[in-house]
Amino acid sequence: MLTIDKIYDAARVLENVVRHTQLIEAPRIGAECGCRVYLKPENLQLTGSFKVRGSAYKISQLTEEEKAHGVIACSAGNHAQGVALAATKQGIKSVICLPSSAPISKVEATKRYGAEVCLVDGVYDDAYTEAIRQRDEKDYTFIHPFDDDDVIAGQGTIGLEILNELPDTDIVVVPVGGGGLISGVAFAIKTLKPSVKVYGVQAEGAPSMFNAVKSGKAEMLPSVSTFADGIAVKCPGENTFEYCKKYVDEIVTVSEDEISAAILHLIENQKLTAEGAGAVSVAAVKFGKIPVEGKKVVCLVSGGNIDVTILSRVIDRGLHKSGRACSIVIELIDKPGQLEAVSHIIASCGGNVVSVHHEHGDAQAVNGCFLRIGMETRSFEHIKEIRTALISKGFKLV
Amino acid sequence: MLTIDKIYDAARVLENVVRHTQLIEAPRIGAECGCRVYLKPENLQLTGSFKVRGSAYKISQLTEEEKAHGVIACSAGNHAQGVALAATKQGIKSVICLPSSAPISKVEATKRYGAEVCLVDGVYDDAYTEAIRQRDEKDYTFIHPFDDDDVIAGQGTIGLEILNELPDTDIVVVPVGGGGLISGVAFAIKTLKPSVKVYGVQAEGAPSMFNAVKSGKAEMLPSVSTFADGIAVKCPGENTFEYCKKYVDEIVTVSEDEISAAILHLIENQKLTAEGAGAVSVAAVKFGKIPVEGKKVVCLVSGGNIDVTILSRVIDRGLHKSGRACSIVIELIDKPGQLEAVSHIIASCGGNVVSVHHEHGDAQAVNGCFLRIGMETRSFEHIKEIRTALISKGFKLV
Repeated sequence: MLTIDKIYDAARVLENVVRHTQLIEAPRIGAECGCRVYLKPENLQLTGSFKVRGSAYKISQLTEEEKAHGVIACSAGNHAQGVALAATKQGIKSVICLPSSAPISKVEATKRYGAEVCLVDGVYDDAYTEAIRQRDEKDYTFIHPFDDDDVIAGQGTIGLEILNELPDTDIVVVPVGGGGLISGVAFAIKTLKPSVKVYGVQAEGAPSMFNAVKSGKAEMLPSVSTFADGIAVKCPGENTFEYCKKYVDEIVTVSEDEISAAILHLIENQKLTAEGAGAVSVAAVKFGKIPVEGKKVVCLVSGGNIDVTILSRVIDRGLHKSGRACSIVIELIDKPGQLEAVSHIIASCGGNVVSVHHEHGDAQAVNGCFLRIGMETRSFEHIKEIRTALISKGFKLV
Repeated sequence: MLTIDKIYDAARVLENVVRHTQLIEAPRIGAECGCRVYLKPENLQLTGSFKVRGSAYKISQLTEEEKAHGVIACSAGNHAQGVALAATKQGIKSVICLPSSAPISKVEATKRYGAEVCLVDGVYDDAYTEAIRQRDEKDYTFIHPFDDDDVIAGQGTIGLEILNELPDTDIVVVPVGGGGLISGVAFAIKTLKPSVKVYGVQAEGAPSMFNAVKSGKAEMLPSVSTFADGIAVKCPGENTFEYCKKYVDEIVTVSEDEISAAILHLIENQKLTAEGAGAVSVAAVKFGKIPVEGKKVVCLVSGGNIDVTILSRVIDRGLHKSGRACSIVIELIDKPGQLEAVSHIIASCGGNVVSVHHEHGDAQAVNGCFLRIGMETRSFEHIKEIRTALISKGFKLV
């Protein structure tokens, strides 16, 4: 059973196992939203996410016999790394089942933290079935990623830390996947200071807990679609659903573009790398999903394990969406000197060309062609200036 | 004159003005290098760099009359933002002269921190001349970016914080541009604990202090070339040169690729964004420029104000250099089904195509063409596997 004493006990156990992450003020989002925003940067936690807290407390509660057998988990993400490190730090064996399609970086990280990795052909569900089979065969303890009171108590230590460091917090905003993190945090906060509002945030493409709380019934989503893989969970846990109903004020959702913008904001203004799941709390505040005016708001940034390939795409999208990169297509007659003329105009406006593609295709004139130019720009104003300059020299922009 | 008492005084003055950044362990670099590495994350400092420390202390030492007139500085970078915020926090006027070519993001940030921005046609030297002219005309105090004992004392507070938090530090590694940061840090550390080694790091393309210390003579470099703009300084300061000679054990240099790799490492493993100048300390340790085995090493990450356009390029370069992205060119006969065949082979090897260019050009056969395919891959092994699969099906890779 989850009690505040259990969460205090978890804090005691975790004291020398995990990092006590310090709140960091985010003045720019605060200024945008008329409030004061603080980040709880669990992306700076060991293993790059809060998950190590719950796993480490769960493992500490096992009997000596259970510890001697070791633990098993199924995850291709943060939970895998959390369990691996937590087990290694307590000197016990861990086995992590992952689908064989898991990114090599996650497999390597899990191994590095000391786990035995078992790659299973198929998808997550196949890896899960294999984990259960091995548990039964070898007497491992299965560590559930969220629907377990010890795991939830471990995550709840974050709630204690927030209230300790900022006793006059008004609002805490928490990413929600299966609901383990928010269950622990909301339980701790509502028990100690019920006046603090606790909001949950899900991705629009994976609104399992959002739907469950709305309809009063936890149902399995047929599919989920979000790049925030850390919270792409099809079905809430039984326990976590009950805790969310009881302790969470409201759950809201954010779009993929909002999550991308939040990630870019955190890089540019806070010098922090967040993964999609970690940035949803910031996205919810930044895009007005939660009433925050005049309040002290803590956004829990739950993790930072984003694939750099994805990060690179998020940045590129963000640059285009904020006018700092653009692509223009010019239809022109294929004769000498045209590329030079175009380049000259762009350069004299201060645009920085980064790609040029020249193609024939279905231009109106037989000797017509298309020139697609990618460039770095300063702002939407600047793009308009370049377009206007090209048009005024007689170029036809598509 | 610089004294340890002045640095202690600066620490007292700055206590409620700047953030006390906490050391963060970097276990992966430590494991790579056989030592324990800690980051002093001044990228998480207000304004995104350590510069606010020196400016704030300098300003606190002005007379009431000087404060009433205000301050002026010349910078397109971190110093501008540091002076702006430091002045605003102490309720005094600041004017920042920038070359008009400065990136709009830097101009906006400087304004946001409360400075009056004066854009000057030309380059840095023109902006500097204008700042001196305005100083003389309007009785502003000019805040030098590094060659000033009060500024140096402010930066030196970082040395105190490091020794307080990790008293058994063996080595401190510090980025070097004009030398203000390392002068303050080295003075503090060598005064309090002379056994700690202090290393400076410069970019290979801007080795002003490196050369000066080697040759015993500070000379102006004809030009500097590095994307680490925060340390692209042509000439050491007079005072900072003396302090470096006296208190710094050695200055080393790192290449642009090493700096890029360090930035990518910090994003992936520490969830921190560093600018080029900020990452040189990590680059020096990661690439074996400093003997660190068995030691406790603090890398000062001096700032995080990197343009996201540059960051995006650094990530792309890092992906290619680590086998996680590649571009292959296939010479083939232009007939139906070829693109499908190539795509099929790549897909069945698990490569993810992100760009395709098809061009005629100077292929050997008249009906030959080139296909350039950009893709995301898992590792160099994986790239080799894809190339081998294509070759075994008869495709000619260029």
